Amino acid sequence: MGIKHSDKATLQQRLNIEVPIIQAPMAGVQGAELAAAISNAGGLGSLPCAMLNPSALKDELQRLTALTDKPFNVNFFCHKPATVSPLQTRSWFESLSPYFQELNIEAPGEGPGASREPFGDQALEVLEQFKPAVVSFHFGLPEPAQLQQLKSWGARILSSATTVEEARWLEDNGVDIVIAQGVEAGGHRGSFLTQDMTTQTGTMAFVPRVCAAVSVPVIAAGGIASAEGVAAAMMLGSAGVQIGTTFLLCPEAKTSALHRAALKSEAVHHTALTNVFTGKPARSIVNRLVREVGPMADTVSPFPSAAGPVSLLRAAAEPNGNDDFTPLWSGQNATGCQEIPAAELLQKLSAAR
Amino acid sequence: MGIKHSDKATLQQRLNIEVPIIQAPMAGVQGAELAAAISNAGGLGSLPCAMLNPSALKDELQRLTALTDKPFNVNFFCHKPATVSPLQTRSWFESLSPYFQELNIEAPGEGPGASREPFGDQALEVLEQFKPAVVSFHFGLPEPAQLQQLKSWGARILSSATTVEEARWLEDNGVDIVIAQGVEAGGHRGSFLTQDMTTQTGTMAFVPRVCAAVSVPVIAAGGIASAEGVAAAMMLGSAGVQIGTTFLLCPEAKTSALHRAALKSEAVHHTALTNVFTGKPARSIVNRLVREVGPMADTVSPFPSAAGPVSLLRAAAEPNGNDDFTPLWSGQNATGCQEIPAAELLQKLSAAR
Repeated sequence: MGIKHSDKATLQQRLNIEVPIIQAPMAGVQGAELAAAISNAGGLGSLPCAMLNPSALKDELQRLTALTDKPFNVNFFCHKPATVSPLQTRSWFESLSPYFQELNIEAPGEGPGASREPFGDQALEVLEQFKPAVVSFHFGLPEPAQLQQLKSWGARILSSATTVEEARWLEDNGVDIVIAQGVEAGGHRGSFLTQDMTTQTGTMAFVPRVCAAVSVPVIAAGGIASAEGVAAAMMLGSAGVQIGTTFLLCPEAKTSALHRAALKSEAVHHTALTNVFTGKPARSIVNRLVREVGPMADTVSPFPSAAGPVSLLRAAAEPNGNDDFTPLWSGQNATGCQEIPAAELLQKLSAAR
Repeated sequence: MGIKHSDKATLQQRLNIEVPIIQAPMAGVQGAELAAAISNAGGLGSLPCAMLNPSALKDELQRLTALTDKPFNVNFFCHKPATVSPLQTRSWFESLSPYFQELNIEAPGEGPGASREPFGDQALEVLEQFKPAVVSFHFGLPEPAQLQQLKSWGARILSSATTVEEARWLEDNGVDIVIAQGVEAGGHRGSFLTQDMTTQTGTMAFVPRVCAAVSVPVIAAGGIASAEGVAAAMMLGSAGVQIGTTFLLCPEAKTSALHRAALKSEAVHHTALTNVFTGKPARSIVNRLVREVGPMADTVSPFPSAAGPVSLLRAAAEPNGNDDFTPLWSGQNATGCQEIPAAELLQKLSAAR
């Protein structure tokens, strides 16, 4: 195997940060507060933008830039929006219909609109006003012209690979840094060249393989939850790490009370890759919907349309303290979660040995 | 998280070895030669005994003890032999029948006998003559009386955990050391309290979780293929590592020419957990049988009976250079494989940084 250090700049120098830790963007559970706390503490905070329309994006960026003058990362999804056939919509509703009956709510005739938009020119226009130092993507990359425009103001481009083939594709298509997303990671798999989940690889195996395959720096993600984990990931050849789950109990995260309770319970020990929440495989704590309909449901409607009816079930169940239908995003290692300020947690994660 | 060092003895002191590396027992692809080479070089060589009857076990132990006077490990399976119903046998044959037709061989009326026997009193009697320093198990542990007898001559007992619950069970039931088998590992999952493969965890996440859950020393396994990988695993709190795949191209291994060719090909980049070769989930390079019938076949007959008819297909296909039905065991990180003597490879893996 070969661990490559293609040029001498550290991740800290490249991104103008103090510790080589990126806070993973986590749509739905955090916004500007967590990102700012991490950036102010010397890491790279991330703003998840996949669920923000242009106006909300602008608002959130205004809040973020008011909270920090340090570099931060904005993260977008790059999925190709699927056309959802009436048959697909119906088949997914049929799978969920017992729950609509149980909760005594009406299943809508059609699904609600998509809650996750791919990156586009409108977002680009908003970004141009803020010129973020780092822009990261999930599910590939946007159009070359859009990428060039982001780079025109000096933004560093990151994207997630879940296979060696994806890492090579990202390097060939212009990323500055590849995020090697090991199978342990919480939330959505970044997969964009494969749908075959047997290709997904543990961090211990994946990071050295990606480091050997590409010349750009590699960020390790998945299962890292302590200073020792950070050191281990760097030992494998990565230039830094991306950590998400560990920050979910910080006061700056918007993690819901139900989600927090699950993360602190025995349930956190069993997560699975499941498509039941959105239509794409993502790692969540195994709850009732995952167990009964998933983890990988054949009947699920395409990403992101599957989330529509599930959100109706959530809205009916959650007020009763019921997390049966709540996406309880978590990676396979939640041992690092602590209810302490993010800056303090970042410092613990950065502790040199 | 807590990394525990419950007592000060290193793995080397506990097992009377020089480097904290156990060569993973790999039934079918290695015997006394590889085990002796590793033990002589200061690691802990392992003799896979799951496919040896008492007479073959005795022969192999005689060869091994003639080749080394250093400590070694003998490894056994502890599965509960399943009763295979005629329906299960038939259903598995039906899944395979197109291949019997294609290869123009006759499908037997009944399956051949099991090729993998669980540990029992006959093996114990043989072991008593050799008093191996270390005995390891897969799929749990043998009966308490058998375990006591092994311990009576001072043997250290190891077994594999694939969940935190299994790690705790093994500690409660008397192992001296737990092997934390991350999902990256090649060959059979050691699972014995669960059949749910969504519970299987990447090494980066699993090792710290097991270290936090048990007081006995923990060996990290899965995805480790370099000195950096060894260092990373130790950083996570493990007392040592178990490495298998990396040794498969060594001249001392009995890896077949077809298996060696697959390990050196692009095919090695895609492995999967599959039950098609034996009836239990095991990680193999994805070949035709895995792709077409698996990776996890509902129709498979119980472990180890599924291997019977597959062995007939192998016997017909392999002489023609066809590995369609060959279990091509490999972990998710084969980047460490080198065609050099095992002692030399062990030295590379041990290189301190």
